[in-house]
Amino acid sequence: MKKLFCERPSLAKERNSIAEFRQYRERMNRKILNSGNLQIQRFFNLDSHAYRQGSLSGKVKELLGLVASLVLRCDDCITYHIVRCVDEGVTDTEFFEAFNIGLVVGGSITIPHLRRAVDRLEECRRLDRHCKRRPQSSAD
Amino acid sequence: MKKLFCERPSLAKERNSIAEFRQYRERMNRKILNSGNLQIQRFFNLDSHAYRQGSLSGKVKELLGLVASLVLRCDDCITYHIVRCVDEGVTDTEFFEAFNIGLVVGGSITIPHLRRAVDRLEECRRLDRHCKRRPQSSAD
Amino acid sequence: MKKLFCERPSLAKERNSIAEFRQYRERMNRKILNSGNLQIQRFFNLDSHAYRQGSLSGKVKELLGLVASLVLRCDDCITYHIVRCVDEGVTDTEFFEAFNIGLVVGGSITIPHLRRAVDRLEECRRLDRHCKRRPQSSAD
Amino acid sequence: MKKLFCERPSLAKERNSIAEFRQYRERMNRKILNSGNLQIQRFFNLDSHAYRQGSLSGKVKELLGLVASLVLRCDDCITYHIVRCVDEGVTDTEFFEAFNIGLVVGGSITIPHLRRAVDRLEECRRLDRHCKRRPQSSAD
Amino acid sequence: MKKLFCERPSLAKERNSIAEFRQYRERMNRKILNSGNLQIQRFFNLDSHAYRQGSLSGKVKELLGLVASLVLRCDDCITYHIVRCVDEGVTDTEFFEAFNIGLVVGGSITIPHLRRAVDRLEECRRLDRHCKRRPQSSAD
Amino acid sequence: MKKLFCERPSLAKERNSIAEFRQYRERMNRKILNSGNLQIQRFFNLDSHAYRQGSLSGKVKELLGLVASLVLRCDDCITYHIVRCVDEGVTDTEFFEAFNIGLVVGGSITIPHLRRAVDRLEECRRLDRHCKRRPQSSAD
Repeated sequence: MKKLFCERPSLAKERNSIAEFRQYRERMNRKILNSGNLQIQRFFNLDSHAYRQGSLSGKVKELLGLVASLVLRCDDCITYHIVRCVDEGVTDTEFFEAFNIGLVVGGSITIPHLRRAVDRLEECRRLDRHCKRRPQSSAD
Repeated sequence: MKKLFCERPSLAKERNSIAEFRQYRERMNRKILNSGNLQIQRFFNLDSHAYRQGSLSGKVKELLGLVASLVLRCDDCITYHIVRCVDEGVTDTEFFEAFNIGLVVGGSITIPHLRRAVDRLEECRRLDRHCKRRPQSSAD
Repeated sequence: MKKLFCERPSLAKERNSIAEFRQYRERMNRKILNSGNLQIQRFFNLDSHAYRQGSLSGKVKELLGLVASLVLRCDDCITYHIVRCVDEGVTDTEFFEAFNIGLVVGGSITIPHLRRAVDRLEECRRLDRHCKRRPQSSAD
Repeated sequence: MKKLFCERPSLAKERNSIAEFRQYRERMNRKILNSGNLQIQRFFNLDSHAYRQGSLSGKVKELLGLVASLVLRCDDCITYHIVRCVDEGVTDTEFFEAFNIGLVVGGSITIPHLRRAVDRLEECRRLDRHCKRRPQSSAD
Repeated sequence: MKKLFCERPSLAKERNSIAEFRQYRERMNRKILNSGNLQIQRFFNLDSHAYRQGSLSGKVKELLGLVASLVLRCDDCITYHIVRCVDEGVTDTEFFEAFNIGLVVGGSITIPHLRRAVDRLEECRRLDRHCKRRPQSSAD
Repeated sequence: MKKLFCERPSLAKERNSIAEFRQYRERMNRKILNSGNLQIQRFFNLDSHAYRQGSLSGKVKELLGLVASLVLRCDDCITYHIVRCVDEGVTDTEFFEAFNIGLVVGGSITIPHLRRAVDRLEECRRLDRHCKRRPQSSAD
């Protein structure tokens, strides 16, 4: 990728933020759950239960969801599980060990998703620092 | 996904509209068909023939295309078949029964695509109501 | 594939019959449902409900399951839905129109599965003719 | 799947045992590593390192490999990681919680693989009981 | 995979030979082409034309088919393109360079298919040596 | 897709340019390589080595990477290999022969990616003409 570029690169367009992702996700989930299809409601229910603490901890289950999402190459699912893993206290070293397993199992075709995953992880860490500096008035 | 967010979410960036999708699709299809590769022309021909009424109706065939696109997780293909299913008179209840089959077969990894599919379906219904209020001068 | 073969080909090893497939499927399903994991039980329940008659007929839903299984390239799922489609009265012409959609959407990588699908379909038709000649004493 | 079967089902053909799987795996791995392609040797090296204890335990890493293999639907990879998880002391309850995540993420298309996974797990437990009754003369 | 095995491994069951694969493939292709579905006939036609010499040589095209089949993890397609690549004079070193690209792009999930690919390649080389020692009476 | 549209289509939103793609790719790759995970560094190393000239030429290897990326449907990987293929002197006719193999193997589900691939190819050709008119002061 060397010879082709002579012009000045402009700034890359910004992706949606995690907040925008969450907003869209919640708005559309509400519409899906209000569609009247009872089966789909039950599926969504199973989906959210799957990651609850059982014999395996919530942290391990979120890591399982993250690596599954990485090898299946779904950016939105990766974003969701990164946010949840951060909630569960996964460290950066642990994240990269999990990313490495996804990369080895799924191959270089996962690399564009890995790039966006690392971007999301940084966004989460930034939000976290920001929130700690400005204490919230109400529990969320 | 609870603890992380303290800031106000801004509005999500708009996706391309169906009209923009169609425009891009037609412009690039023309280029592909004009590339001089006869085999690719024939493939495109087979593709458009596959959904024509035969022993199975056009409606059933478009539903088959829709569910195949959902489990293979291709947003553009989903958009295309939703528009075509709307043309064929598929009702919302029928759409959600088809979505449910795609969801059960393909798993939660299809959910982000399902969200965008429901968004597209709403866009189609809005366009439809809009067109009915303002009768077109010419059949398209 | 012309130059390589000089020896006489021997007869190909037989695949498991549909009856053997069904036997293994039922035995393992029982073990999974008896594992004590309530979530998995509920998933299996959702799976079997997804194909029940609703606004879309059982026949259309089985065809949706068949084409989804073909593009995702799962032989066991294809076998299951072929048997169910035969139960629902799908004709050979309808089968091949559905196969064609799966082939066009999923590409030549589906062809080995298509070969085995056609093999299974023939096995179903043979069983059907055989059963009609020898009326069963008890409903199954 | 009710109406079609009138004949007596015969016994299903046996799959290869874990021992046979392991034998074939090791024989072919040797050939691949002796092919003289240094890059492939390095990939195999990375693959075996990915599951070694780090910040995440070996047990968690094997579970990550197992769920990744389940959603990508590779029977041999599932077999390999089940054997490794058994070595790491994963309990049946933990296995089924991990299976449930794979099932929800990957959908019903993973069920045939889940059936074979549960079969393999039982085979491992049988071998384990058998080995405990007959103590080995040498460490393996 | 160390602790589990105390019993003597038995010999692995033989896979179908290339000759058996070819026989089944040709028999089922005939049935598919005789089904009366004109679209599927045309698809099969496009499939066989895609690998004919054009601006890219037949050899390069078969290698493209081989790597595509490896990353999509279809054993039958891999077998077919290995046989064709051998016909086109691909050397072992070239095969392993192509395998390496498939392995890096597609990840460790392709390794079981790589093992069977190397097995098939050896079978082709054996058949080739065998045929050279016993000249054929008729061109095939 | 005929009946639905009565309003004037607006202009489609622009995608990121190749320069923007490259910029983001390099920035995130740096972060990944600086994460301290040695295994991931080694994987990236294997990835870049896989396409170097060996028994197969760099051009053939880039074509293998391109078709693998097309059938696995990864836009960023397709963009990367198109740029590299242009560097290696692949002609438009050769590109479309490779695209055709990807299309036949991977099916119509690859068509949206093919459209974006052709768009990227045109962008490369435009950049190339532009650079030739304005000679660069330094070799890159």
